[in-house]
Amino acid sequence: MKRTVYFLADHTGITVEAMGRSLLSQFDSFEYETVHWPFIDGLEKARRVAERINQTTMESGQKPIVFTTLVDPSIRDYFKTLDVPVMDFFETFTTRLEQELGLPSSHALGQFHTTKNGRAYDQRIHAVNFALNNDDGAITKNYETADLILIGVSRSGKTPTCLFLGLQHSVLAANYPLTDDDLHSDLLPKILNGYKDKLYGLTIDPHQLQRIRQERRPDRRYSSLEQCKMEVKLAEGLFKHYNIPYLETTSMSIEEISARLIQHIKRVA
Amino acid sequence: MKRTVYFLADHTGITVEAMGRSLLSQFDSFEYETVHWPFIDGLEKARRVAERINQTTMESGQKPIVFTTLVDPSIRDYFKTLDVPVMDFFETFTTRLEQELGLPSSHALGQFHTTKNGRAYDQRIHAVNFALNNDDGAITKNYETADLILIGVSRSGKTPTCLFLGLQHSVLAANYPLTDDDLHSDLLPKILNGYKDKLYGLTIDPHQLQRIRQERRPDRRYSSLEQCKMEVKLAEGLFKHYNIPYLETTSMSIEEISARLIQHIKRVA
Repeated sequence: MKRTVYFLADHTGITVEAMGRSLLSQFDSFEYETVHWPFIDGLEKARRVAERINQTTMESGQKPIVFTTLVDPSIRDYFKTLDVPVMDFFETFTTRLEQELGLPSSHALGQFHTTKNGRAYDQRIHAVNFALNNDDGAITKNYETADLILIGVSRSGKTPTCLFLGLQHSVLAANYPLTDDDLHSDLLPKILNGYKDKLYGLTIDPHQLQRIRQERRPDRRYSSLEQCKMEVKLAEGLFKHYNIPYLETTSMSIEEISARLIQHIKRVA
Repeated sequence: MKRTVYFLADHTGITVEAMGRSLLSQFDSFEYETVHWPFIDGLEKARRVAERINQTTMESGQKPIVFTTLVDPSIRDYFKTLDVPVMDFFETFTTRLEQELGLPSSHALGQFHTTKNGRAYDQRIHAVNFALNNDDGAITKNYETADLILIGVSRSGKTPTCLFLGLQHSVLAANYPLTDDDLHSDLLPKILNGYKDKLYGLTIDPHQLQRIRQERRPDRRYSSLEQCKMEVKLAEGLFKHYNIPYLETTSMSIEEISARLIQHIKRVA
């Protein structure tokens, strides 16, 4: 029976889950089920969660592991009275930061992932909309304001990367697909000529590309291995010829691709 | 002069930044600049970062605060030799988890935010594509496989919420806009009739809606306060009449809206 892991938070619980999963990913052979319990903003809710935790212990015969980013000391302390291991991410560091900064912490519930920092939040939403509106080369008039223009063959990962760059990093990312015509001309598409400093290429192993395309539009030229190989070869040739930096994304997540792109932007900027 | 905060990681650095910013959001009056340094995967890189940290101390006259999720103990220990406060998120908890699980940690760099858990990663990307393909009511044939269908007036926050639900939570979320025609009929759009259990409404303060629309398409009926008030009133009437759960999202971030929706799905499921 898999052990149960609880992620408890007084707000969205996104941070506690990221932190807990990061730590647990260091234990390869440990398999677990998760219970994600956000918005625990009072002792009454905490008691209901505690009941569920105790029930898990009884039913599974194993103590669940509890991760928390709870801010309210009384709720935090309450969970520590339970007979389960509690990994409290805030307690240690809040005390140290109070000393270091010479400031009291506000103990205000879930200040992160809110709209309270209005301008920063608006920028993120603006960046998501920018990615949506400047996807796939349909609209090119906003390239002037883009931070980055991703180029690559169809299904090389441009769209989800642009969305993530907007959502997570407030980066204004457009993307332009390199079509058959573009690739065979051996020339950079005209529209991109004025924005060479913003261009970044994504490329991918042709076999993986073929698998992805095959799922989308099976058994066409588009999804043949031959076509994929040819497109990838021409695209990489174009990147090299024009000295456009590019990433081989075959085994990379969009988080990893985005982190690399952020580094690139900062170096260029 | 603002104090500098460093986020150091051996991988994408997303977790350390979330954790650090969450903690610092507890100190209202603390203003800071950030340096985000991912992919510190060896001592040589660590030394370059350390030089920069020392430079910051000298130039600003203030010791930067360093947050890390570094896994390699030798790199971790190296940063502790610097004369700056280091908040090490992994050290304490890795040791405790080793004891609790009776397993050694792998000390493998950045296992989270990778594609290594292939199926889970593919599901997330599939969910992002689902949100893109089933946005704005243009395509309705996939509602059968949707986990959730968000409905609401134009610019009530449906699209970014659907994208975030896919990206963060692998939820298959479609959305359908309630148009003027829909609203004046006082009837649920026909296409939605078969999916009542998947529907969830988003609503918003008409004044905020007017501000958002005004930015998008200024000075039209679409962005008049009168029109916004009318649409919101009719949409909320529809939600109530058909007993469709809904959220008032005016001061909510997409993370907050999504966390509430996840709770709803789990209760319904």
